[in-house]
Amino acid sequence: MTSDLDFGVGKELSLVEERIRQAIRSQEALLTDIAAYVIQAGGKRVRPLVALLANRAVGGRNLERTVQIAAALELIHSATLLHDDINDGGEVRRGREAAYKKFGLQNALVTGDFLFVKAFAIGGKFEPEIVDLTASVCTALAEAEISQKRNAGNLELTREQYLEVIRRKTAMPMSAGARIGAILGGGTEREVEALSAYGLNLGLAFQIVDDILDVIGDPGSLGKPVGTDLKEGNMTLLVLHALNDGSDSRLRLQAILREPRKTPDLIDRGLALVRDSGAVERARVDADHYGFLAREALDDLRPGPYRDALARLVDFVVRRNA
Amino acid sequence: MTSDLDFGVGKELSLVEERIRQAIRSQEALLTDIAAYVIQAGGKRVRPLVALLANRAVGGRNLERTVQIAAALELIHSATLLHDDINDGGEVRRGREAAYKKFGLQNALVTGDFLFVKAFAIGGKFEPEIVDLTASVCTALAEAEISQKRNAGNLELTREQYLEVIRRKTAMPMSAGARIGAILGGGTEREVEALSAYGLNLGLAFQIVDDILDVIGDPGSLGKPVGTDLKEGNMTLLVLHALNDGSDSRLRLQAILREPRKTPDLIDRGLALVRDSGAVERARVDADHYGFLAREALDDLRPGPYRDALARLVDFVVRRNA
Repeated sequence: MTSDLDFGVGKELSLVEERIRQAIRSQEALLTDIAAYVIQAGGKRVRPLVALLANRAVGGRNLERTVQIAAALELIHSATLLHDDINDGGEVRRGREAAYKKFGLQNALVTGDFLFVKAFAIGGKFEPEIVDLTASVCTALAEAEISQKRNAGNLELTREQYLEVIRRKTAMPMSAGARIGAILGGGTEREVEALSAYGLNLGLAFQIVDDILDVIGDPGSLGKPVGTDLKEGNMTLLVLHALNDGSDSRLRLQAILREPRKTPDLIDRGLALVRDSGAVERARVDADHYGFLAREALDDLRPGPYRDALARLVDFVVRRNA
Repeated sequence: MTSDLDFGVGKELSLVEERIRQAIRSQEALLTDIAAYVIQAGGKRVRPLVALLANRAVGGRNLERTVQIAAALELIHSATLLHDDINDGGEVRRGREAAYKKFGLQNALVTGDFLFVKAFAIGGKFEPEIVDLTASVCTALAEAEISQKRNAGNLELTREQYLEVIRRKTAMPMSAGARIGAILGGGTEREVEALSAYGLNLGLAFQIVDDILDVIGDPGSLGKPVGTDLKEGNMTLLVLHALNDGSDSRLRLQAILREPRKTPDLIDRGLALVRDSGAVERARVDADHYGFLAREALDDLRPGPYRDALARLVDFVVRRNA
């Protein structure tokens, strides 16, 4: 959890939490309860962190407005978690029963809509450029969801296509948060571009580590079972690596991926094949690569504690085990 | 269908259609296809009509921006249709297979999110007052959905509580559309308030007629089966009337409403009880009452063809059979 670490914006993060609590208040107590269940379960708050640190790193103007946007980004993220769990049938999230299981599909679905709306009620108060950025993040999320499902079990998927999916699913929200934080903070054009590149590469690294953890993570620390990607037929980078290791075992993995109904035993065997293929190690190299690019982007920023914190955030993201 | 009628804003409505087509374009063809499937199936376009007519009735400034908002309101409406069908298990919508049945739950859910986002990308470009109005419509929709479900089968529901649900579900979107159309059109404060009241009462009448049609409508014209409300345990105005007619048959209706799993036969018997109770006629009186209030609100507008068209729209809404 990032909350264990000090990135120097603890006070700002607690303002974000307060803004979120305020946003999810509703005369329908159930909406507030479900929203709080999802949001207050923790989560790493990486999106708000990126926006806040980017803001601080370029001078920290408009802190209050950056807090607003950081809250909006976390609300959007939470909305997608609610809807994603419905979509992929995930039963556990952050160590607790998935909201749609606990509160019912309809209530979880509507709460997701409610969170999207609350995010936009915040985001809609900003300049057109920022409205567009926020909307494009959400559009990209929806497109990535469709694209990922369309390519489920697609053994022909290329690395470039995979990267495009995770760019839209994970990297764009982080990049947009960094960009907006930097714009509001009063950054120069060069700083704004640097932080956009930082967020993009951080997001790519983040998602690749997510993919890794779904293969070798500890369900206890993760708060959810592993093997979800394989079960869904998601063509993660690890699967792509394992399918391209030139060995006989890739044929067995192909057969598992082609199986429409994957039993727990089949998933276990698939995970073992992926692990034994060396895909985890190759994916780590990839995550490190994007982490390196993220840190490299920071060279265009003035030195200081927030630039250092952004660099530490890369390490945290790449090395995390949950 | 309103498209058969001439309210004098046919050209403006086609601009709305064009704006919607533009909004739903996506690099993921499936998103565009599902969105078009829902939106282009027709629909009465009452929300855009109200906004456009309100704009024209007060002078018609900012037509282009009113077209944008009218498109956003229809996108929001379509998003809720997509999600509502998932929620209530409706299998047919506008005479066609419900989108989630045809395209799968996940794809329909994500497309709903996509439409919300596209609506907000439009709405977010407006003044804070209009952003707030648009967001409050969506919040109210989510709250109404929760409230309606919370009160399913609640035999103690009062008429006031029912009206509060339909105010949020149907009347607020129309009222907000009328209000925004009037603000953008350059209306005086008095005109803006008059048109808000018009939209609110039109929306209440609209929903009561919807409730009536779910009891006595022709499935062929409606493009969906009747009895959905009863199946869901929705406490519509007709059910409230039927439960308060002082007859023995209300006890039989109570028993049906308490039944957790309602067979088609049980629903048919429930519908017959509602019809025989005189609830339809009493609900018609209610719908006429709100229609009257809507027309009365128009007294504060300058006379002219658009005021007349707004009055004709009330007649259309109250008398429609689909």
